[in-house]
Amino acid sequence: MTFIVKTTRREEFADITSRVADAVREAGLEKGLCLVFVPHTTAGVTVNEGANLDVATDILAALDRMAPRDFPFRHAEGNSPAHVKASLMGSSVTLSVAEGRLVLGAWQGVFLCEFDGPRARKVLVSLIPERL
Amino acid sequence: MTFIVKTTRREEFADITSRVADAVREAGLEKGLCLVFVPHTTAGVTVNEGANLDVATDILAALDRMAPRDFPFRHAEGNSPAHVKASLMGSSVTLSVAEGRLVLGAWQGVFLCEFDGPRARKVLVSLIPERL
Amino acid sequence: MTFIVKTTRREEFADITSRVADAVREAGLEKGLCLVFVPHTTAGVTVNEGANLDVATDILAALDRMAPRDFPFRHAEGNSPAHVKASLMGSSVTLSVAEGRLVLGAWQGVFLCEFDGPRARKVLVSLIPERL
Repeated sequence: MTFIVKTTRREEFADITSRVADAVREAGLEKGLCLVFVPHTTAGVTVNEGANLDVATDILAALDRMAPRDFPFRHAEGNSPAHVKASLMGSSVTLSVAEGRLVLGAWQGVFLCEFDGPRARKVLVSLIPERL
Repeated sequence: MTFIVKTTRREEFADITSRVADAVREAGLEKGLCLVFVPHTTAGVTVNEGANLDVATDILAALDRMAPRDFPFRHAEGNSPAHVKASLMGSSVTLSVAEGRLVLGAWQGVFLCEFDGPRARKVLVSLIPERL
Repeated sequence: MTFIVKTTRREEFADITSRVADAVREAGLEKGLCLVFVPHTTAGVTVNEGANLDVATDILAALDRMAPRDFPFRHAEGNSPAHVKASLMGSSVTLSVAEGRLVLGAWQGVFLCEFDGPRARKVLVSLIPERL
């Protein structure tokens, strides 16, 4: 299934944990894998700290230092840092589902990483059962 | 299945989208997951912009700034930056297959990331059906 | 299944290849996918050079340069670089299983990436058969 995330800033980590968890529950998947995929080239997805919002801010700041806007990039659209950051985070995360629930650590959340917003972004959730 | 990519430069992003799509079609997979895996430690795989080649050039330039060749690395073979970049991009991507086709965004392509070429690189494609 | 890795330093790459391979063998999986997932936000998992330990040291050094401890991070716990590095490496790797064995390149190993140790870390291994 697919859902839309409307981001509100140029760069942000949008917490999509509950929406992914809803997709797992609605599908009735008991045990298997859950692929969360972003079909965009200037956005990514990552798993990290969900309880403290400063962590996302710090990751964005560190990525900005790694791929700064004033670097002499060739791509004319001016969003090369966003492409770099998308590949650093990755376009998907794969999670485990057990006993009908997404398996995440106590502090983990799933985040859409917006690097060239604000935009409406698609998130695809694919579920693969371990046994049929 | 496995295919070979012959890279032609020390560093390059080789577009393997059509070869992965061919593997999906040849296997007749209707719905499921597709793992694209590179069994190498100085190459990786990523999903990013497929239409404009400048984007790949910019990602390579940014990675070179993150893991520069003149950094005092310990590994004696001189290809430590390639190992760093391989882990930053990752050794695999997982994609969704629906209606017999690879699910990718309009601008997305799948790239073998060569960081220590030119070489002949293997790419493994593993397909998992959602229903049998 | 789950196993515990006791790390011994603040930062290290712990080779977990044989433990993941054991999980595959014990489950009797002949063909399919193997997800290796770390339910932590200051640790990650990556595939890279397993034969030469200098490579892991070099990757840790490069990551330290990308997300230095003296960067003005906001998160008060002082472990923001660990969160950044966890997302750069990723919280999981997905591997292929064929003929009852983990498919890895000759030089590849699977590593738990500790960025805020020493700690006892959990590793989850999820196996999905290609055919039942």
